[in-house]
Amino acid sequence: MEQLKQDVYQANMLLPEYHLITFTWGNVSGIDREKGLVVIKPSGVEYSEMTAGDMVVVDLDGKVVEGNLNPSSDTATHLEIYRNFPNVGGVVHTHSRWATLWAQSGRGIAPYGTTHGDYFADTIPCTRDMTPEEIRSEYEKNTGKVIVETFQGKEPDHVPAVLVKNHGPFTWGTDPHNAVHNAVVLEEIAMMAVYTEQLMGDRIKPMPRELLEKHFFRKHGPNAYYGQKK
Amino acid sequence: MEQLKQDVYQANMLLPEYHLITFTWGNVSGIDREKGLVVIKPSGVEYSEMTAGDMVVVDLDGKVVEGNLNPSSDTATHLEIYRNFPNVGGVVHTHSRWATLWAQSGRGIAPYGTTHGDYFADTIPCTRDMTPEEIRSEYEKNTGKVIVETFQGKEPDHVPAVLVKNHGPFTWGTDPHNAVHNAVVLEEIAMMAVYTEQLMGDRIKPMPRELLEKHFFRKHGPNAYYGQKK
Amino acid sequence: MEQLKQDVYQANMLLPEYHLITFTWGNVSGIDREKGLVVIKPSGVEYSEMTAGDMVVVDLDGKVVEGNLNPSSDTATHLEIYRNFPNVGGVVHTHSRWATLWAQSGRGIAPYGTTHGDYFADTIPCTRDMTPEEIRSEYEKNTGKVIVETFQGKEPDHVPAVLVKNHGPFTWGTDPHNAVHNAVVLEEIAMMAVYTEQLMGDRIKPMPRELLEKHFFRKHGPNAYYGQKK
Amino acid sequence: MEQLKQDVYQANMLLPEYHLITFTWGNVSGIDREKGLVVIKPSGVEYSEMTAGDMVVVDLDGKVVEGNLNPSSDTATHLEIYRNFPNVGGVVHTHSRWATLWAQSGRGIAPYGTTHGDYFADTIPCTRDMTPEEIRSEYEKNTGKVIVETFQGKEPDHVPAVLVKNHGPFTWGTDPHNAVHNAVVLEEIAMMAVYTEQLMGDRIKPMPRELLEKHFFRKHGPNAYYGQKK
Repeated sequence: MEQLKQDVYQANMLLPEYHLITFTWGNVSGIDREKGLVVIKPSGVEYSEMTAGDMVVVDLDGKVVEGNLNPSSDTATHLEIYRNFPNVGGVVHTHSRWATLWAQSGRGIAPYGTTHGDYFADTIPCTRDMTPEEIRSEYEKNTGKVIVETFQGKEPDHVPAVLVKNHGPFTWGTDPHNAVHNAVVLEEIAMMAVYTEQLMGDRIKPMPRELLEKHFFRKHGPNAYYGQKK
Repeated sequence: MEQLKQDVYQANMLLPEYHLITFTWGNVSGIDREKGLVVIKPSGVEYSEMTAGDMVVVDLDGKVVEGNLNPSSDTATHLEIYRNFPNVGGVVHTHSRWATLWAQSGRGIAPYGTTHGDYFADTIPCTRDMTPEEIRSEYEKNTGKVIVETFQGKEPDHVPAVLVKNHGPFTWGTDPHNAVHNAVVLEEIAMMAVYTEQLMGDRIKPMPRELLEKHFFRKHGPNAYYGQKK
Repeated sequence: MEQLKQDVYQANMLLPEYHLITFTWGNVSGIDREKGLVVIKPSGVEYSEMTAGDMVVVDLDGKVVEGNLNPSSDTATHLEIYRNFPNVGGVVHTHSRWATLWAQSGRGIAPYGTTHGDYFADTIPCTRDMTPEEIRSEYEKNTGKVIVETFQGKEPDHVPAVLVKNHGPFTWGTDPHNAVHNAVVLEEIAMMAVYTEQLMGDRIKPMPRELLEKHFFRKHGPNAYYGQKK
Repeated sequence: MEQLKQDVYQANMLLPEYHLITFTWGNVSGIDREKGLVVIKPSGVEYSEMTAGDMVVVDLDGKVVEGNLNPSSDTATHLEIYRNFPNVGGVVHTHSRWATLWAQSGRGIAPYGTTHGDYFADTIPCTRDMTPEEIRSEYEKNTGKVIVETFQGKEPDHVPAVLVKNHGPFTWGTDPHNAVHNAVVLEEIAMMAVYTEQLMGDRIKPMPRELLEKHFFRKHGPNAYYGQKK
């Protein structure tokens, strides 16, 4: 668990480095699937004062098993993602500007270019409105539930990001660093999608499906040929 | 008063650090409620040359009681806020780009997401046009008066910011640092609100009231559960 | 002249510091009115390699009287400004993004807020199209002539900036540093004006005349009360 | 070849310095025309870990003749440009935000100002949609072919940039550094063109042809007079 705490701490520290957060508005977690334990950032602690030792360990029911601080207030959302998306090793939440403003508009981000296709094989969806009941009780857990509901019939490993309506993005990945990587990519494509739509107005169309899949599978899966052989 | 002068000085120095100001276009003040004295930045002094000793102390009528420099030309506006909003401990004025352009448009910023709701429980209002008479005499004091007028029937502690029409934002808080914190948040939500509206056009709607209040009271008031126990 | 060369050199070095230029796309000059000599940046020299000794001295007819390098290709434009606006002590030209895109659109920047009014007492005008003849011969001098023509009946000391159509901004001031200061302000208000118009669409209106003049004369002229007594 | 490897390495390192790339999303190559050999960045290697020795040497058919790493996945596109544009000495590909969002919209960038004209003598074109067949086999080579097709009847030395539809920009130049220089310029004009169109709406018009050519030939060709004599 010490290694995972280090990984989660360092992944959290990447959020200010990549300009994805203001103040403490973000959190990264990672999971040890064998032990069924999740390491997550404490709630509301300044990045400049945070240490790896401040990371909180919780089980998949949200019970704190190690750590002196309260875990992130979004912990229940992270856990719902881990419980339902079995290949996810790390989860990130931010209020990064461009992804968040898409979330505020309640719209998913259609694929307009290969930057999108290199990481996401389809539209990045936006969740539905939560009901007053879902907001009033177990709000953070229910946030996770609407994320999972949004991916019914979809493949979360091929679209490792979601926009929570009127809130902001969650991204995930094979580990905490990969989840942060996807948060950076999401911010780039969110910015570019705004202006792609502005330039085209009503004539806007998503990119051709063939091109999207070419780019996604050039980098992912058994036939990938981007980068160096591992 | 020496501690308050240090606090106000340091809060002023945060304005360039958070990229909220160009040149000397901003000012922070703080109040000692027991003594009825306000500490404020001097007018038109470069940030790189300013020291804590340059801070000016005025009473609530604007009379300088300590300091060799002229107080900020916006002092009378700050004082009007302190006189009418009894829980305010610090006030900030900037010409930060995104908040200022909303002020220039004369429109308030509706709540579109939880970033807004985490700090502001309602629309951030914009003041009315000032009359030629209000502009001609005691302009800065009258600026304060239209701010106070704008909050008639509103709760300034729940919406610690205002846009002065064709001018720029004023924010406040429990102390000078908290007021700067709110100025940073205002700039973030002002930017995101512009594009949220762009993405939705005529279909734009504020966020659901339940979600706004959930987020505000998750962080503020007796039932807050965000962050660590103090 | 050595002091003026230092001043002009340092003012030029502020352009990259204030993010007003890319590569060598800008130039600052200053004038010694008594001697009738102008100091200006050499053409196409990298900022990182430039020294005060590289500054070129020309007379008001553009004849090089000191210096080993070619003066800025825009020298003739600067000279036309000095010859016609008698109070100008420094001139700046940049391709700063926000001011330049207004120039590209061929539109002047109307006053929408007090940030504008603190420095410019009216709309910042955009020049007319130059004729093919004006472009073909003595292009740079003719650029200066259309600037001067644009200020017929206007007061260049109260509006120390112009947008040259399809080109970019020129600003001026009492000395080279003041001209750079105005170039920074212009960039700020150019950015904010774009979005002020976006937020208001067809309902856009300039700020009230009273407020504009209140702010301009609060900082400029015999009744100014902003800043410290000199 | 060692000098060219150094040049290509250093030109690649300029991409993060000029904020043209995120992660490893870009590549620069250079050619030795006499030897018919191209030096290019390896695929997917972090900039912070890359050395000049990691550069890969390929012949014009794409065969690796030196180097231990896979060349950039975009190598075949670069080679197609070198084979067909005989004066090109360096090629750059990035996903820089503003140029890429124009590529995503499928539109070329019309000349709206002299910043454009100083480097590009005409509209920067966008390629057509690739067919499913072109995407499925030899995708990267076919990307080069549609670039070349786009310049049928055009002069690539006068417009050293192209937008690949739904993908991003390629720029070229006399050598690797010059190609990076053009990539920086492209990003500037791409940003300004978006807002120039926003400010003018349906009334938008390209700049006058005379002005465009004046600026291009003031800096390029036998009658250039910008800069210092070489």
